[in-house]
Amino acid sequence: MEVNNRFRNLYLKNLELTKQRIKDSINSDNFINQSVNNLDEIDKAANLLGKRLREWFSLKNPEFSKSVTDHKKFVELILNNKDKKHTTHMGADLTKNDMEPILNLAVQIQSLYILRQKHENYLDQIMKDKYPNIYAVSGALIGAKILAHTKTLKKLSMMTASTIQLLGAEKALFRHIKTGAKAPKHGLILQHQILQRSKPKFRGKIARQLSDKIAIAAKIDYFKGNYLGDKLRKELDDKVTFINKQNK
Amino acid sequence: MEVNNRFRNLYLKNLELTKQRIKDSINSDNFINQSVNNLDEIDKAANLLGKRLREWFSLKNPEFSKSVTDHKKFVELILNNKDKKHTTHMGADLTKNDMEPILNLAVQIQSLYILRQKHENYLDQIMKDKYPNIYAVSGALIGAKILAHTKTLKKLSMMTASTIQLLGAEKALFRHIKTGAKAPKHGLILQHQILQRSKPKFRGKIARQLSDKIAIAAKIDYFKGNYLGDKLRKELDDKVTFINKQNK
Repeated sequence: MEVNNRFRNLYLKNLELTKQRIKDSINSDNFINQSVNNLDEIDKAANLLGKRLREWFSLKNPEFSKSVTDHKKFVELILNNKDKKHTTHMGADLTKNDMEPILNLAVQIQSLYILRQKHENYLDQIMKDKYPNIYAVSGALIGAKILAHTKTLKKLSMMTASTIQLLGAEKALFRHIKTGAKAPKHGLILQHQILQRSKPKFRGKIARQLSDKIAIAAKIDYFKGNYLGDKLRKELDDKVTFINKQNK
Repeated sequence: MEVNNRFRNLYLKNLELTKQRIKDSINSDNFINQSVNNLDEIDKAANLLGKRLREWFSLKNPEFSKSVTDHKKFVELILNNKDKKHTTHMGADLTKNDMEPILNLAVQIQSLYILRQKHENYLDQIMKDKYPNIYAVSGALIGAKILAHTKTLKKLSMMTASTIQLLGAEKALFRHIKTGAKAPKHGLILQHQILQRSKPKFRGKIARQLSDKIAIAAKIDYFKGNYLGDKLRKELDDKVTFINKQNK
């Protein structure tokens, strides 16, 4: 009987420990992962419904549906009744009853955009809190995308700069290795402002500088070193300014 | 000068007439089309976001995310804080800050379901008003799907019953013609209750009866004949009861 009890105690302690471990394994990496993927999904949903809204509304006012290309702005204008300036439109006069579902749809899409903004703010905040160095170098969205790609900060912190440079460009990389096609110069980081603002011919060099700094920042964030974000970012900006001034 | 004026008048009258024609060409067929397609899109969006919600929430309570399979119910339970009964869950204790985006997402999905219901009510109402005979025979959703498939009531009213029977099964039909595979017995109408409730072996016969009645109903609705919906539906139900009672 005593043996049985001992085993039972062991079992219960083990169970508790396992639960605790599972609890501990959930950290900000997971939240980043979920929320950055969700941003993409919200975009997809808003696009899907936005296209429909446009087509549906064009029954009333086809010129207006064509004149505004941005879904978000289109929704806003409809909800604020700003389509009225196209008074000579070709469409039908819709009854209140037939307009209602269209307006309801517009409200829905608008609230998707509001949700997107909230999620972005949330992401910004976790990045700032938990990955301050990466945040300073890459900004919230790109940092989060890189983290969602590598799944954990631990993995990212162990990567070399050249690996980070090509995260998200795996397909192009393997095409390069297999067929000898051009090597990719950048993956996810291409969306970074400093690359977007630079001339294409300098992007390879700048991508290398950027991924260098992200690699250092990730190591500092993972091993909880002192904050060096501002310093890293300044070094990066100086390098980029220097590269962009070159003439060759 | 007078000639010029005459031309101008002709031009203006022509323009007005064209606009009027365009206006007149927009009718309930268009509204049906838009709203029934939108229902599918809302489903897609709700599914996409629902899957994410499930994954995200499982960080907190994985057992709960697995125990409820219906997205709609899942959303409801989370928003009403009903996940609490799984007190011994394995997940992490999420802070209020980390729970907020999850709950916001849940609210969004719930409002998609509410929008869906509103659209369904709208559809029901147009079908009842504008296509009363089709409505009586096929119900709102299937009638609307058939109309969205044929685009206009006019086209539907000119179709034979056997064409209507196979609307939405075109792929299977052409496969049958090309490769000699089994001929399809029903397309969109398969979702009709009377087919769903019948034994598979009787479905071919019943599909034929159903499409017969839809063909008649469409002609009455298009040519604005007297309402015969209830009579058609009764005849159909009687036939179906008779067929289902057969023993072979």
